[in-house]
Amino acid sequence: MEEFVTLDYGSGGGKTAKLISEMIVPLFSNEALNELSDGAVVDGADKIVMSTDSFVVSPVFFPGGDIGKLSVCGTVNDVSMAGGEIKYLSLACILEEGFPFADVKRILDSIQRTAEEAGVMVVTGDTKVVERGRGDGIYINTTGVGVLKTPGLSVKNLRAGDKIIVSGPVGDHGTAIMLARNANLVEADVKSDCAPLKRMALALGGLGKDLRVMRDPTRGGLATTLNEFIEDSECGIELKEDAIPVRPAVSTVCDILGLDPLYLACEGRMICVTAPEAEERALEILRNFPEGESAVTIGEVTSAHPGTLVIRTALGTGRIANKLAGDQLPRIC
Amino acid sequence: MEEFVTLDYGSGGGKTAKLISEMIVPLFSNEALNELSDGAVVDGADKIVMSTDSFVVSPVFFPGGDIGKLSVCGTVNDVSMAGGEIKYLSLACILEEGFPFADVKRILDSIQRTAEEAGVMVVTGDTKVVERGRGDGIYINTTGVGVLKTPGLSVKNLRAGDKIIVSGPVGDHGTAIMLARNANLVEADVKSDCAPLKRMALALGGLGKDLRVMRDPTRGGLATTLNEFIEDSECGIELKEDAIPVRPAVSTVCDILGLDPLYLACEGRMICVTAPEAEERALEILRNFPEGESAVTIGEVTSAHPGTLVIRTALGTGRIANKLAGDQLPRIC
Repeated sequence: MEEFVTLDYGSGGGKTAKLISEMIVPLFSNEALNELSDGAVVDGADKIVMSTDSFVVSPVFFPGGDIGKLSVCGTVNDVSMAGGEIKYLSLACILEEGFPFADVKRILDSIQRTAEEAGVMVVTGDTKVVERGRGDGIYINTTGVGVLKTPGLSVKNLRAGDKIIVSGPVGDHGTAIMLARNANLVEADVKSDCAPLKRMALALGGLGKDLRVMRDPTRGGLATTLNEFIEDSECGIELKEDAIPVRPAVSTVCDILGLDPLYLACEGRMICVTAPEAEERALEILRNFPEGESAVTIGEVTSAHPGTLVIRTALGTGRIANKLAGDQLPRIC
Repeated sequence: MEEFVTLDYGSGGGKTAKLISEMIVPLFSNEALNELSDGAVVDGADKIVMSTDSFVVSPVFFPGGDIGKLSVCGTVNDVSMAGGEIKYLSLACILEEGFPFADVKRILDSIQRTAEEAGVMVVTGDTKVVERGRGDGIYINTTGVGVLKTPGLSVKNLRAGDKIIVSGPVGDHGTAIMLARNANLVEADVKSDCAPLKRMALALGGLGKDLRVMRDPTRGGLATTLNEFIEDSECGIELKEDAIPVRPAVSTVCDILGLDPLYLACEGRMICVTAPEAEERALEILRNFPEGESAVTIGEVTSAHPGTLVIRTALGTGRIANKLAGDQLPRIC
């Protein structure tokens, strides 16, 4: 392998083959992928769940993860939140000419580790190269296919009194990316929460109909995701501000930079809504996993203000938190 | 919709929602997509076929197609060549800040038309926006999932005497892209052959074991694809040069620009290898479709020179055609 990516590696010819056979296949080796045909044949089931995501995060390496880990977690989590047990992943990279192969290798290793951790196989892939200045190092698309294990999840299931639970502190990922971009501006020890939520989501599926919906609050953060839950709905949501877990370092950084942690992306957190009688069981299930050990109830569904998310302070005053309109932090995933 | 893409449209907030609800959902409306959850739940089967491709073609509009049509055909064809009946497609766009929404619309329309023509549903998607100068207008990833209809296709099936058939003239797509980039250099009436091969591939599946393998010669062209057939194999391939269909305009442009049409990408052609006794039936099936009306046998598998593709001229002399090493034409798909 040479030191840097050149356009030849996107040619579909010998150099592309070298890249695939030397850097990709050894890492992800499995029967379906090793065929190296253009499509992967995998076992299916009656209902499958499919999700896609492109990752353009900048910088590609950040505290707590990198674009490789993120590109596996992002899609694993989307399929998991939809009630699927993810099994297969496609992996498509757009490389910029001049990007170091050492970084490609580091990212692929990270993809391999995370895929193994999440129990998902990379079964098909694609590599393109664009000229210098037409990309930004590396962009990755992953598409996941899984088997439907928890059917019936939908925001339409929400009822007044349902509990809103979050699996851990919010805003870590967005803050970590912000800090990685502005190392000289603020110094703080914040890591991305980037992690696969597959196991927790499957375990929660055992709640049956008492589990209304699950979602990972990525772009737009907790507040935007909860707004999506109640759009065009007869329900509203009320959160207790002091119940929402935010790490002190994240709070401080957000204060300094003028950001709101409730709108910052998480990449290893889930929000779930449960029937009131399932709240305790849900918390127990989540806290059984290291990634859910600080799971906590942060509010509930209400019929009082349909379509509106209200955040209630300890003093009893409330503020409306709308959906994120513009982008407070582009390219965080 | 504003006139140009801004970073806000990648925020995951209100503008992203607007882009999705106003430009994407109306076009591709179906039950799975309309849920707008992060993963699509679709019907599956015992064996599924999965394929992914990122499209970075430049320019995005070219004679005979555009990046939208290409991004559907590319993945439809990969799944089809693997013996699958493609059913579901994911669609992920990376937009560059400042790209005109009119062009986004035109590309999405083209995706919709092509998906309808190919009988495939877009069931899940994603949109990211990168800053000006970090992309090139639009990059698209599609991942396709289909049901396995023609099992057992493999280059391992090749036997001496098998016939090599191509469904139409080669090199049109690569030449059309080259011309679109160099409009002032050469003028010629060449259109991309970009088309979905789903119906033809499914029909050929009826040949059973007599159909050895199918492949669409995209990046690297006919010569590279045939080299891939015989790598590490005890078979070689011999082509009759004057049997290989190349349009006169393509020949002329290639002569002027110093390109070899046998290495130029096709995006609506297929190569199939059949048992000798199935050759006529295969040609009949292909010629039943407008996109296969000029299907023709161009050579055969031989045991004479294992691993080597030889192109035999009318005079009886032969030249070895190796796999493409570098890139004669980057970003053609």
